[in-house]
Parts: sequence; C-alpha cells; structure tokens
Amino acid sequence: MLAIDQRKSLREMISTALGTQPDSVTPEDLSLVKRIVTRELSGYASALLTDPIYGYESTIDVIPRDTGVMLSIEVTGYNTVNSFERHSRLIEGFGVQKAANLGADAIKLLIWYHKEATRATIEHQNGIVKRVAEECNKYEVPLILEVVNYPKPGVDLKGVDYAREKAERVIDAAKTFSADEFGVDVLKLEFPGNLKMTKEFQDRSFSANQVAYSLDEVKSFNKAVNEASEVPWVILSAGVDPEEFIENIKISNEAGASGFLCGRAVWKNIVNHFPDSENMTRFITEDAVDYFKNILQSNSDAIPWYSHRRFS
Amino acid sequence: MLAIDQRKSLREMISTALGTQPDSVTPEDLSLVKRIVTRELSGYASALLTDPIYGYESTIDVIPRDTGVMLSIEVTGYNTVNSFERHSRLIEGFGVQKAANLGADAIKLLIWYHKEATRATIEHQNGIVKRVAEECNKYEVPLILEVVNYPKPGVDLKGVDYAREKAERVIDAAKTFSADEFGVDVLKLEFPGNLKMTKEFQDRSFSANQVAYSLDEVKSFNKAVNEASEVPWVILSAGVDPEEFIENIKISNEAGASGFLCGRAVWKNIVNHFPDSENMTRFITEDAVDYFKNILQSNSDAIPWYSHRRFS
Repeated sequence: MLAIDQRKSLREMISTALGTQPDSVTPEDLSLVKRIVTRELSGYASALLTDPIYGYESTIDVIPRDTGVMLSIEVTGYNTVNSFERHSRLIEGFGVQKAANLGADAIKLLIWYHKEATRATIEHQNGIVKRVAEECNKYEVPLILEVVNYPKPGVDLKGVDYAREKAERVIDAAKTFSADEFGVDVLKLEFPGNLKMTKEFQDRSFSANQVAYSLDEVKSFNKAVNEASEVPWVILSAGVDPEEFIENIKISNEAGASGFLCGRAVWKNIVNHFPDSENMTRFITEDAVDYFKNILQSNSDAIPWYSHRRFS
Repeated sequence: MLAIDQRKSLREMISTALGTQPDSVTPEDLSLVKRIVTRELSGYASALLTDPIYGYESTIDVIPRDTGVMLSIEVTGYNTVNSFERHSRLIEGFGVQKAANLGADAIKLLIWYHKEATRATIEHQNGIVKRVAEECNKYEVPLILEVVNYPKPGVDLKGVDYAREKAERVIDAAKTFSADEFGVDVLKLEFPGNLKMTKEFQDRSFSANQVAYSLDEVKSFNKAVNEASEVPWVILSAGVDPEEFIENIKISNEAGASGFLCGRAVWKNIVNHFPDSENMTRFITEDAVDYFKNILQSNSDAIPWYSHRRFS
C-alpha cells in the first residue's frame, strides 16, 4: 500500500529543498506533489492512503477504480503537553461518515504513543482510537491504526539507546492497540528495530556506523511484534531509503507481517525537483516506479490479512 | 452518462463489420472494444454503465475514481414468447449485493415493455423490476430502469406508423414504471419520437425522407413524458448518429429530462477498425471524444436529478 497523506512532513521536505520556511509552502504546492505521485504510482499499489485536505479531491480523477482508497482522519502533527507528551486531534468538519460517503474503502488514524505518558494523555489518545473505531464499525469501514512511538526529552531519536528501546515500544504498541476493546482492523507499525545499527549491515549504504544489536535480535523483535498483535499488521517506512526498507519488509513478513504501507521511502526525492512538474514527473516515472516495483517484489511473501491467526 | 454495457448488439456490430457470424465473436473481442472505449472516454462521463461479464473486471483499472459505475444486471437480449412478447432475465450468479460489493454506485436494469402483451408477460416483467428494486433498496444502491418498447409483428421499427405509435408508448412506460410501487430511482427512456421523420429536419443528414409529424409535436411528446414521469429521467441514444442525438437531447432537456445515458451514438464506428487496437484507439481519441464533448455541450441545460419535482 502506498502513502501520500503526508502534510506537515511534506511541507518541511519541500521547504528544506527550496531553502525556505515551511509556512511559505502553499496548499497548491502540496497538492501538486500529491497529484504527480498519485497519478504515476497509485496504479501499482493495492491501496492508496491519501488525505482529505490536499490529496483526495484534487487527485480522485487519477486514482484507478481498482486501487483501494484510505483516508487520514487526524490532524497532521501533534500538540505537545507536559513538556513532551503528544496529543492527537481529529480533522474538524470531517469524519468517518463523510469519508465513507466520499468513497473511502478504509480509514487511517495516526496516534502518538508513549506508554510512560501521564494517565490523562493515555486516556486522551485511547479515547480518540475508540471513538473512531466505533464510527468505523457503524459505517462498516475498516480502521487502520498507525501507532507512532516517540522518545522522552533528551533521548536521541537516531541514537543507539532509542534503537534498543524502540523494539520494546513497538511490541507494546502492537499488544495494546490490537486488543478487542479498541476495535482496530489493521495495525500500521514502525519497524521494531534499526537496521542501520545491526552488526550484519555495517557495510551497507544505510549503515549508521554504530552497532546496537545483531540481525538475529532484530528478527526476534519482529517475531515478538507478530505474537503481540492480535490483528493483521503492516510496517511503515518512516522515510528510510528503499534499500533499507526492502530489508525491513523481508524481516517483518518472515515474522508474520501482512506487507507494508510506505510513502516517503518511494517518492521522497521528488522534492529535489520541486516545483518543476516535468522533472518531478520524470523522477517518479523513471526512479520511484522502479523503487516501488523492487519493494513489491521483496513483499511477495507477505501474509494475506485473511490468513492472520485472528481469522483461523 | 456513458454506456458500454452492450453485449448482443456489440457482438452483432463486430460481426457485421467483419462479415462473419455473431457466434464467432469471442468474449475477448468484446472486452477489447470495451476496454478501449472505457479507457479513453470514461474520464469525460459523470458515470459509466458497463456489464459485469465482459466489461467491469477487465476495465476497472482504467475507470477513474470520480466516474460513477453502474452495472447491468439483466441478461442481454430477450426470450420471445407468444410469437412476439419479450421476456427479460437476470444474470445468473450475479445480483445487487454482489454489484454493491464490487463497488457499483448504481444498478441498471433493462426491461422490454409492450402494454398490449398478455397479463402473464406483464406480470413477469413487472416482477423482475420489483424484485431488483427491493434488493436495491436493501443494499442502498440506486436503480436506473431502462424501458425499451417494441412493435407488434408486422409493424416496421423504422416506419412511419411506429414513429407515431412510439411517443404514446414511451409516455405510458414513463407513467407506469415511475409509480411508487416499482421503487425506481431514475428512468432511462427512448426518445419519444423520431427526428428523422419531422418536417423541420428533412434537410438534415439523418433525414428518413418521410414525414410523420412536426417538431412541435415531438416537443409536446417530450413534455408529456416529463409530466408522466414521477422520477428523474434520461434519454438513451439507440445508436442514432451524434448529430441527431444532440437534437434529441436539447428537446428532452427542454421538456425536463436530466440528460442522457448514451453509448453507440458516441463510439459505434469503433467496430470499423476492429481488431486493430491502435486504429480503434485513434478513432476514439480523435473522433469519439469530439462527439462526446459536443453531446456534453448540448446537455448543459439538463435538469439536475435533485431538482426534479419529486424532491421539491
């Protein structure tokens, strides 16, 4: 599955590429990039995740009828409370019923998660998941929940400590949010490890030149995620390069994942050609299509969602 | 709206063009023509009518997400009973629920109608309409009912007598099948007249060099259809040429129609290039697209379905 629902991160990518401020990126800029990516890539995906603000309406005419559509329901980014805790919000004036009426085949909700957050934060986040799941149930639309963990203040997101900590966090997220009480149909999870820091991949282009663990350990983290998740799960790319993402997919699918939902890993370099439509299109048709085909090939052993033990 | 659900008539068109028998036309031949028409034209239509046998599955990847899809539910053609009466049948192994699950936005049912048929025939045909309408209601899918009248034995479909008789038949069909008891949402009707035989159009390319009535009479037939129909109605093209169909549309819309659902008027000459995909594609992109754009332009005054008096 392909994601082009990025809003805040896409705005930042474009402004970084242009050397400007994120605020100077317009809605039309976001829609332009989304349109080119959607037009050239959605035909290769089984489903497309897009957003209802800059994406869906301006690209609906270039989404093939046999590519499923998932719509994001949350506001991009988060509100910070208690110095580091992240609160999610739903898009105002939108909702599950509206998404269903617009032809969405599924809803995607992204939730920020830290198990050591205060009870108020945990309840706030859980409440959003439960409310959306209830609406999804009412309108018979599947819910894909993306759980994104984050570090405490002072912990480097790219450091060895967080790489070690992350596996445990992803396993906990899988266990927590696949419980029946939440009513989630599919989990979209972070890869529970950091291949940049595995002993065996130190000679690869994506190496961080730091070692946190062995490949076998990372494989065992994935198996633990699969054991923890009571629903089918897919992994997200978090913008790593295609070479690394392909290794992620193979390891996760071997452990029992149902494939991937990735965006930036495939198309992120499009912003280097912004705002030249012709060159952006050329990058997607010449390079990103190849990346995506390679990723799809490495995904051939994914477990179909209906083969998950939940349905056996 | 664009129709490419033709089966029997398309098979005959292809075999006539090739100088062969209809039986020699294969399912792949039908799908090939349907794919080219769908790929090049469906983006211009608000909705596409296709069939679930040779059309939908083999063209779903080229139907844009913002073009509605209507699926035919009846077997093509008819069974003749009592020497001339026509009985319709539903496609076996298909149905409203299946169509809805496959993503259809609406169901189209074609029914053969002759008000002087025996009671058994009338009840047979009415029964099919009511059964399908009930299923459509259950699965919340709108029903478009196409009513096609036919002459008694010995009456020439293209003659002056039938041209005179037809108006009355279409008006009766509109009144009969828009009654609440049937549960139809939109009627797809024949043009209640034959412009080939109007006094005012004798100098046109489509003239039959025979006069049945004046243009004013044909306009009054259309007004009578509008008064008879308790639901929004659209006209079908019955394969007339674009020039004539444009005149049909203007007259029907002026009387209160909600536009058209046409197929052959736009793409029929594609069969002259069969089986050459390249030339068939060229005919559609160079000629049929222009026909369709002209037809759309002449349709600009159509009454939106929600402005029909039924909803006032």
